[in-house]
Amino acid sequence: MSEYHFPRRDAQFVLNHVVDFSRICNSLKQDELDSGLIDAILDEAARFAHQVLAPLNQVGDQQGATITQSGVQETPGFKDAYQQFTEGGWSSLAGEPEFGGQGLPRTLSTVVMEIWQSANMSFSLCSLLTQGAIEAVTVHASDELKSIFLQKMVSGEWTATMNLTEPDAGSDLAAIQTKAMSEADHYRISGQKIFITWGDHQMTDNIVHLVLARLPDAPEGVRGISLFIVPKFIVNTDGSPGRRNDAKAVSIEHKLGIHGSPTCTMSYGEHEGAIGYLVGEPHTGLACMFTMMNDARQGVGLQGVAISERAYQHALSYAKERIQGVMRDGSRVAIVHHPDVRRMLMLMKSGTEAMRALAYVAASESDKLTAASERNKPLHQARLDLYTPVVKGWMTELAQELTSLGVQIQGGMGYIEETGAAQFFRDARILPIYEGTTGIQGLDLVGRKILMNKGESVNALLNEIADEFKTLRVSEELASVLKTAIDTEQQVRDGVDWLLNHKDEASAVGVNLMMSLGYLCGAWLMLRSAAKALALSVDESEDHEFLTAKQVSARFYGEHFLPRVAMHLQTMKTGSAAIMALDVEQF
Amino acid sequence: MSEYHFPRRDAQFVLNHVVDFSRICNSLKQDELDSGLIDAILDEAARFAHQVLAPLNQVGDQQGATITQSGVQETPGFKDAYQQFTEGGWSSLAGEPEFGGQGLPRTLSTVVMEIWQSANMSFSLCSLLTQGAIEAVTVHASDELKSIFLQKMVSGEWTATMNLTEPDAGSDLAAIQTKAMSEADHYRISGQKIFITWGDHQMTDNIVHLVLARLPDAPEGVRGISLFIVPKFIVNTDGSPGRRNDAKAVSIEHKLGIHGSPTCTMSYGEHEGAIGYLVGEPHTGLACMFTMMNDARQGVGLQGVAISERAYQHALSYAKERIQGVMRDGSRVAIVHHPDVRRMLMLMKSGTEAMRALAYVAASESDKLTAASERNKPLHQARLDLYTPVVKGWMTELAQELTSLGVQIQGGMGYIEETGAAQFFRDARILPIYEGTTGIQGLDLVGRKILMNKGESVNALLNEIADEFKTLRVSEELASVLKTAIDTEQQVRDGVDWLLNHKDEASAVGVNLMMSLGYLCGAWLMLRSAAKALALSVDESEDHEFLTAKQVSARFYGEHFLPRVAMHLQTMKTGSAAIMALDVEQF
Repeated sequence: MSEYHFPRRDAQFVLNHVVDFSRICNSLKQDELDSGLIDAILDEAARFAHQVLAPLNQVGDQQGATITQSGVQETPGFKDAYQQFTEGGWSSLAGEPEFGGQGLPRTLSTVVMEIWQSANMSFSLCSLLTQGAIEAVTVHASDELKSIFLQKMVSGEWTATMNLTEPDAGSDLAAIQTKAMSEADHYRISGQKIFITWGDHQMTDNIVHLVLARLPDAPEGVRGISLFIVPKFIVNTDGSPGRRNDAKAVSIEHKLGIHGSPTCTMSYGEHEGAIGYLVGEPHTGLACMFTMMNDARQGVGLQGVAISERAYQHALSYAKERIQGVMRDGSRVAIVHHPDVRRMLMLMKSGTEAMRALAYVAASESDKLTAASERNKPLHQARLDLYTPVVKGWMTELAQELTSLGVQIQGGMGYIEETGAAQFFRDARILPIYEGTTGIQGLDLVGRKILMNKGESVNALLNEIADEFKTLRVSEELASVLKTAIDTEQQVRDGVDWLLNHKDEASAVGVNLMMSLGYLCGAWLMLRSAAKALALSVDESEDHEFLTAKQVSARFYGEHFLPRVAMHLQTMKTGSAAIMALDVEQF
Repeated sequence: MSEYHFPRRDAQFVLNHVVDFSRICNSLKQDELDSGLIDAILDEAARFAHQVLAPLNQVGDQQGATITQSGVQETPGFKDAYQQFTEGGWSSLAGEPEFGGQGLPRTLSTVVMEIWQSANMSFSLCSLLTQGAIEAVTVHASDELKSIFLQKMVSGEWTATMNLTEPDAGSDLAAIQTKAMSEADHYRISGQKIFITWGDHQMTDNIVHLVLARLPDAPEGVRGISLFIVPKFIVNTDGSPGRRNDAKAVSIEHKLGIHGSPTCTMSYGEHEGAIGYLVGEPHTGLACMFTMMNDARQGVGLQGVAISERAYQHALSYAKERIQGVMRDGSRVAIVHHPDVRRMLMLMKSGTEAMRALAYVAASESDKLTAASERNKPLHQARLDLYTPVVKGWMTELAQELTSLGVQIQGGMGYIEETGAAQFFRDARILPIYEGTTGIQGLDLVGRKILMNKGESVNALLNEIADEFKTLRVSEELASVLKTAIDTEQQVRDGVDWLLNHKDEASAVGVNLMMSLGYLCGAWLMLRSAAKALALSVDESEDHEFLTAKQVSARFYGEHFLPRVAMHLQTMKTGSAAIMALDVEQF
């Protein structure tokens, strides 16, 4: 069984020196959130993750959820862990105080969410999706619905699900067929939803399903979708769960990974129709869905960081212990001393650090949006919107490579299930698929986030990166990396210009552009980290081992990841015609 | 359950137009091997793979090998399939006629081997390793040992295993501790071996274990290893299997994939010592092992092609059937029409084709070696030696990406085990690990294959590539790809020069150089294919759909894979210092 330790030094370095979290707290008027309180929260989360959640990770893999006559039975131990989780107040960390939440800044709750996802991704997926649902209900639901559901969702007393996909409607929500019929003060929902994460379990006494469906008078396509709250148990007037709704999980999937997270086929309205409540106006489900989805996409990107970190810790521990081969002096050594193993560990380490920095920076943009004046809000909203497909797409793709390296470092032992490396690799494979595939992220980036505003928001980011590069003071070893990064930023800018002039090819090139932007953002923040580390190292009280390592990590990133940007851009510019050149019959 | 169809057109195109197989047959004086006979062999292999082996692939995954008191029990159906396999003469295809083999050229047996590995990798791994053992026994064993064992190995009546790895000796064979003590006309072997593929089963009435062990007077390190034949059952004087030897499988591994292939921990000499027979001279086990290993490495590289082909067929079939999204005219379409899905399919298609071409070209080098005059043999041996780490390393790494795309194309359905995409992804994950990890291939390339001969053999290959590029006539659409390829060849040449001037960094940069050489070789053969396809298209009787597709595939390869060469080389040249810059404690 593998342990998990919160990478405190790196996370706090990013919080303090990359994100400038104290300034965010000031702007949010959360001055009580001093370093002592932050430390206490992170310490306690790290302890809970280490002692309770992480040990259940392999249990979830080996004793995944099952389905019985009375519904889905989660992994043994999960219910107790969930109870401790909510009792510890962890569910309500980011929730609004009005509904019982602790109102912590998004940046900080993101650090804590990384901890949960590293410790036990299957378990923590339940909270991740509940967060998205909370966001949607907070923004779009009526006060009445909020008063019934929101407090219990925030406290974690009830969990929530997102019901989008149907057998004929995966990435294409226009094809949704689930029906909603008006009846008295509610609706009757009927239809089948698939791939519903944590669609059923016995950990809480109710589950709040958010379900996309069509009203009878709905226009065709995505403009005819409405969002409904469909509770597993109808809520009594006193707020307690009452009789069973006509909604249930009918089967669960046998998946490559995340066995601890039940993926359900949900059946609504097999009998009289499931009772549901409209969220927001009719036919505005798509907007509600995007609120949920954007939140979840940031969360899934963060899962990419989290599982890479866990896989890295696992591989590192093996590499330090596994004796293999001899040095020139004849002494036998651990494989961590072999250059190619070291190369792989450094890929894992620096790749994970770069992702973490971007995940926290993207989260901090949420806080900046909250704190911003009305005049500045659109700028922060645009930046956040721009980050979302990069965080989701780039990070989850990079997590594939890093978790695979985690297996590779352990050689034959990595391929044996008992050692645990394979679980991270299998679990990670869902990340570029759910909450919008990598292809969808690419489309979102080039379409909604670049072409729709004529490149304005991406160029604003590129300007900021270019300006910062000009001011960074880095060590001599990093000078050439910084120079390469400056050139690379210009290449990405040219790539964006190319896109603006080749709109017809947008759908073929999205993924390559998204990957190049991701790698550039990673370099930007790793270089910022290196510059801060250099500046801090004049102070004798600082942790110099760490500050040196941070600079090495940035250099390695620049040398091993940054060259990928030019590769993706070259492919983007030359490679779209050949993509569609074959007739389907020629395959 | 997914079907497998032999990609006849592409395989035959490579045979006829990339490898020039008829010339190879001539040089081997195998003129009876005309196109009619070749067709008949491939037809029959394709039929057997389609009807018998492929349907057992998912069975092997779901009902993997088990271990009981009486040994390892293979997947239901495998024994019958194996019997049909040997009765059909498939085991003996490449064997020497002197020992009952059919003496087919290596190039052709490689095409057939691709078919087996695509249809059922776990099942066919048994034959692949038996081939390596046959090679070692043929080259190194005494006539007496050959007369006892070789014919039955060639016929497939007995299978064979390779016993290298021990708990403390994985990639590092110097650490082998298994002992061999001389006794009368044989030896007594004792020790434990792990990760022994097909170490036990009930498909045949004997198993020939090839075991590395140390004699009492052996020098330390790899120069003190000897190779022994240790049969599961001692062979009677009449050649039949007699009493049980003191050798058995004590456990099997629970693995990420290839469940149908039992991976055994073997115990030799728990009682009186297992009876073994020395192969070759004492202390020359390393050379024998390399004969086996080089053969197996080419085979594993071919598995990379094979499983990518299978994953591609599976994903393509899904992409053609799965309706999702609408065209501008409002009609609903299969996902194969979406540009990003098409991009992924083209990556799978062109990547697999490039690997196939290199696998067959490398195999043809074996045939050229056989046919060569004594004077020319060293050249062909050097080329074959050079190809081996590229075939093993590059192809198995590329197979990771392509089988992962196979999952990605199928989205959520790809993550569900029943659909089968995940099995290819899981099975493929062993390929960069067994028979020498990717790191080991990188070391082999830069050390034994480049530095040891001062770059002579790699420069001979690069010269050949450069010369051929000058003569190729390609279509207008491919002109810029050819130009890029010419530049890229020069970059690889510069990379080799860089290596020759930076010998101390060799161990850190092997993988990056190996990958860049692999991608270049792929471009070389895809461009050769495109030029041949263009030349052939003047002939009206040719399959023009295919010839056009071949050129599109080459173009796509050049645009989407070739830019990776520069990326790997840039990383190689700049990135070795940062690899080792951290102290172990700083991780």
